[in-house]
Amino acid sequence: MPQDIYDKIMMLAKRRGFIYPSFEIYGGVAGFYDYGPLGSQLKNNIEKIWREYYLLKDKCVEISTPTVTLYEVLKASGHVDEFTDLTVDCKKCKQSYKVEDIIDEKLSVENAIKEEKVKCPNCGVKLKDVHPVNLMFSTKIGIGKSRDAFLRPETAQGIFTDFHLLYRYAREKLPFGVIQIGRGYRNEVSPRQGAIRLREFSMAEAEIFFDPKDKKHPNFEKIKDEQIILFDNIKETKITFEKAVKDKVIDNQALAYYIYLTQDFLLSTGIDAKKFRFRKHGENELAHYATECWDAEIYSERFGWIECVGIADRSAYDLRSHIESTNTDMYAIKKFEKPKTVKIKKITPKMDALGPLFKGKAGKIKNILENMVIKDITKLLIEIDGETVEIPDNCYEIVEKIEKQAMEKFVPHVIEPSYGIDRILYCILEHSYNETEKKGVEYRLLKLNINVAPIKVGVFPLINDQKLVKIAREIDLDLRNAGIATYYDDGGTIGRRYARMDEVGTPFCLTVDHETLKDKTITIRDRDTTKQKRKKLDEIVVYIKDKL
Amino acid sequence: MPQDIYDKIMMLAKRRGFIYPSFEIYGGVAGFYDYGPLGSQLKNNIEKIWREYYLLKDKCVEISTPTVTLYEVLKASGHVDEFTDLTVDCKKCKQSYKVEDIIDEKLSVENAIKEEKVKCPNCGVKLKDVHPVNLMFSTKIGIGKSRDAFLRPETAQGIFTDFHLLYRYAREKLPFGVIQIGRGYRNEVSPRQGAIRLREFSMAEAEIFFDPKDKKHPNFEKIKDEQIILFDNIKETKITFEKAVKDKVIDNQALAYYIYLTQDFLLSTGIDAKKFRFRKHGENELAHYATECWDAEIYSERFGWIECVGIADRSAYDLRSHIESTNTDMYAIKKFEKPKTVKIKKITPKMDALGPLFKGKAGKIKNILENMVIKDITKLLIEIDGETVEIPDNCYEIVEKIEKQAMEKFVPHVIEPSYGIDRILYCILEHSYNETEKKGVEYRLLKLNINVAPIKVGVFPLINDQKLVKIAREIDLDLRNAGIATYYDDGGTIGRRYARMDEVGTPFCLTVDHETLKDKTITIRDRDTTKQKRKKLDEIVVYIKDKL
Repeated sequence: MPQDIYDKIMMLAKRRGFIYPSFEIYGGVAGFYDYGPLGSQLKNNIEKIWREYYLLKDKCVEISTPTVTLYEVLKASGHVDEFTDLTVDCKKCKQSYKVEDIIDEKLSVENAIKEEKVKCPNCGVKLKDVHPVNLMFSTKIGIGKSRDAFLRPETAQGIFTDFHLLYRYAREKLPFGVIQIGRGYRNEVSPRQGAIRLREFSMAEAEIFFDPKDKKHPNFEKIKDEQIILFDNIKETKITFEKAVKDKVIDNQALAYYIYLTQDFLLSTGIDAKKFRFRKHGENELAHYATECWDAEIYSERFGWIECVGIADRSAYDLRSHIESTNTDMYAIKKFEKPKTVKIKKITPKMDALGPLFKGKAGKIKNILENMVIKDITKLLIEIDGETVEIPDNCYEIVEKIEKQAMEKFVPHVIEPSYGIDRILYCILEHSYNETEKKGVEYRLLKLNINVAPIKVGVFPLINDQKLVKIAREIDLDLRNAGIATYYDDGGTIGRRYARMDEVGTPFCLTVDHETLKDKTITIRDRDTTKQKRKKLDEIVVYIKDKL
Repeated sequence: MPQDIYDKIMMLAKRRGFIYPSFEIYGGVAGFYDYGPLGSQLKNNIEKIWREYYLLKDKCVEISTPTVTLYEVLKASGHVDEFTDLTVDCKKCKQSYKVEDIIDEKLSVENAIKEEKVKCPNCGVKLKDVHPVNLMFSTKIGIGKSRDAFLRPETAQGIFTDFHLLYRYAREKLPFGVIQIGRGYRNEVSPRQGAIRLREFSMAEAEIFFDPKDKKHPNFEKIKDEQIILFDNIKETKITFEKAVKDKVIDNQALAYYIYLTQDFLLSTGIDAKKFRFRKHGENELAHYATECWDAEIYSERFGWIECVGIADRSAYDLRSHIESTNTDMYAIKKFEKPKTVKIKKITPKMDALGPLFKGKAGKIKNILENMVIKDITKLLIEIDGETVEIPDNCYEIVEKIEKQAMEKFVPHVIEPSYGIDRILYCILEHSYNETEKKGVEYRLLKLNINVAPIKVGVFPLINDQKLVKIAREIDLDLRNAGIATYYDDGGTIGRRYARMDEVGTPFCLTVDHETLKDKTITIRDRDTTKQKRKKLDEIVVYIKDKL
């Protein structure tokens, strides 16, 4: 069977230590991969660049929260009810399938179900009883009186549930952004797309909180003339970010700015600009929390256009859900330049009526009533201890007051760029992969961008002579001490050693030879041009540092 | 109630953004904490220094594997059977307790059970039926035909199950080391020690593979005269690592070297040398996989001596377990200088007898028999498809052969330093915490080591004058661009701003004042001495970089 580029990359990835199938010695499980020594370094480098974008350029702060997440959090966020895939079981094969995976590509899931075109890919039997299946891994905390929990489907909820603390950290000023990098989980029903459809993956997410009336971004001016690579579901175009916002192609500056940042980040990691575009979600594909969403899509020869980043306007959805579920004060505050005079309706509870009726709960109810802001009510319903309770007319009075207000409270909106690090990593490998022939033999070259390359410099003594080895070891150590990742190699011919480094994308190779002993120079070979020049030994560290 | 140091630190940690209780708005759950902006940066800094020790100094490689781990892996590793706590349930309160947590400190668990001194801490009832409870969080992968899995109790198994691939990456040379940093999980029955007894924690582990006949470490010579701070369960002493190995206090050089590395690492992060020691495990407290284990213990005013790092000789335990469970070739190879002649006994299977007896399985059995190396057998038992099968005498012949062997195969031994990052982080906070008074008001100062401090430099304009603000913003940006974490602050008096930075452990504060406009100098204030000097603006970045 002829191999396609995915097969070739995954073979190289396994042989050279980028990606291994997890638990392979136990037969493996779809959707889990390990990063070997080079893959882990590549991933660290991608995350390092990402942090530079969000922490340094965008001045976000970073937090780190547990992967095990309480049921209540994900119930409130909507994931318990909405984070599902339409699934079907084959009673004959005892297999379950995600409907989308087993129907004709041209059919929509809806039509496939309506036209009864869902068939078992294994035994061909027509399948019925399509039902949603929740995609979260579930577990329990503690024993006995244990609590239900899930592995987080996104890192974002850890940020939302800390909002009031983070808002205080930001000295109560909007906008501010919070990032989190870490594992996310999606218990796919039947993952069939190898390394890009994972059940456990690495995410990098940013949640930037805005005043809903002011979704401007302070850096927008600087980038407004840059062009976005846009796909409108029919054709690709390029327009400036300024025009995109003006024409309401993109709803607001903030969203536009993070689309720009995403594009700039991805191209800086070595994603091919010709295999890259943004696509806006249609109404019917929006996640339950989003009002507008853009996908950064990257092209793969095997998989077509892959969604690698989603940039969503989540509006006030999540914060509002957590406020409703917990009554926590997660509002932001806007001080008015001068106080406003407003008419408001307030409730004055009557304890003599509330007391006998609600007994122990009367105090709590009084508290809730006093803090309610009301418009028009016919029936007064409040939620207490998980129950909805109607408060009879005789228990309260409505009073109209005139108040001076110095500020208003509101629930901030959130713009969220959410990156799938593993998919980006695979696409970087695919876009960097080159195959040629040398002397009739297949020759593989990974043209990795120097900033993501796991090894920056190969260091070789030309031959295994102690004098050369000593100098090579010293340079190797100097580079390492300067924080530059090296690979020392004294095995095999020089050609073989170059080939090994080319195959893993190492941009430079240094060779110590006999001339080095005489004039303290060294050859430096460029991976992409294969050209060699001589450089002074004591200038090497600075030379390489400048390239980074 | 008077607060102890733990309460004070946790209050500061929450107020200033180091540590938040997870899911607090949903009532919280014991054993889970979030790292806020400063805590997350502190943690990243600790991990960065750790990587410098293990990747740079010790030349390990890093990998990254899933937290969700297949049942079979953890069955083989012994965790399904051995990773337990003795637990007891109170039928009245419906609570479960770890026996160790609810008995008198002076009693051993064994004696408490024998003497029936296990009582419910809540209702005082005598508790019986002590039983082991497994401490892994369990989950399922997929739906329908799902597979059992756990959240990993350690990152180590991800390294062991990839050993054969990593050995190839290391070009089949021993020793070599592999590290992993990431989440580990322990579903504690009843965690009662706040931020140091977590159910989800961050681990940094190194597995260094050695030839069991050669547990020397190449760097041992350099460190042999250093002293280890040692506690022999009676008193503390100091002896050199050389003497410790010579007197067999520590079994071998490799173990001793990693004990040294741990000590050096911890002290470099700001752990107080006077609150630090190593303690050797007694026979009865060794984990199921260890032949010798040392704990790095750090002293906490609240918790006493806390185990923060374990350095274990895991011998061949794990690799051998995985070899036995999967038949994977996870051996290392030693080539002899000249081939050896050895007598070996081999089995020649007789297919005419095997075939009729075992039918479809005969081929598999033949394969296993041919690859067996045997010493003396009376009964030939083999394992096939999970079953143990006896092979009758008439199905095989034993032949003695003389073979020339160019190499031998063996299972490497593993030395494992395993670090609990969260506990180290808490101890760093406790050891750095200082409380004084300023003008009758409590004044808190965190004397964090500069390398772990989340913010290195506070940058202030003296007053909110646009000229000063502009320069301060520029310095702030220059420092950030040089990779130095800063905090820009123009709110409140200078004293208040210094106090804010002192409280979170920022080593330096820079203030732009009117003199800056004249002579391009700036004041730099030292946290610990509170002394101020003037420095030239254009020398600041280099000055701070040199301190790091």
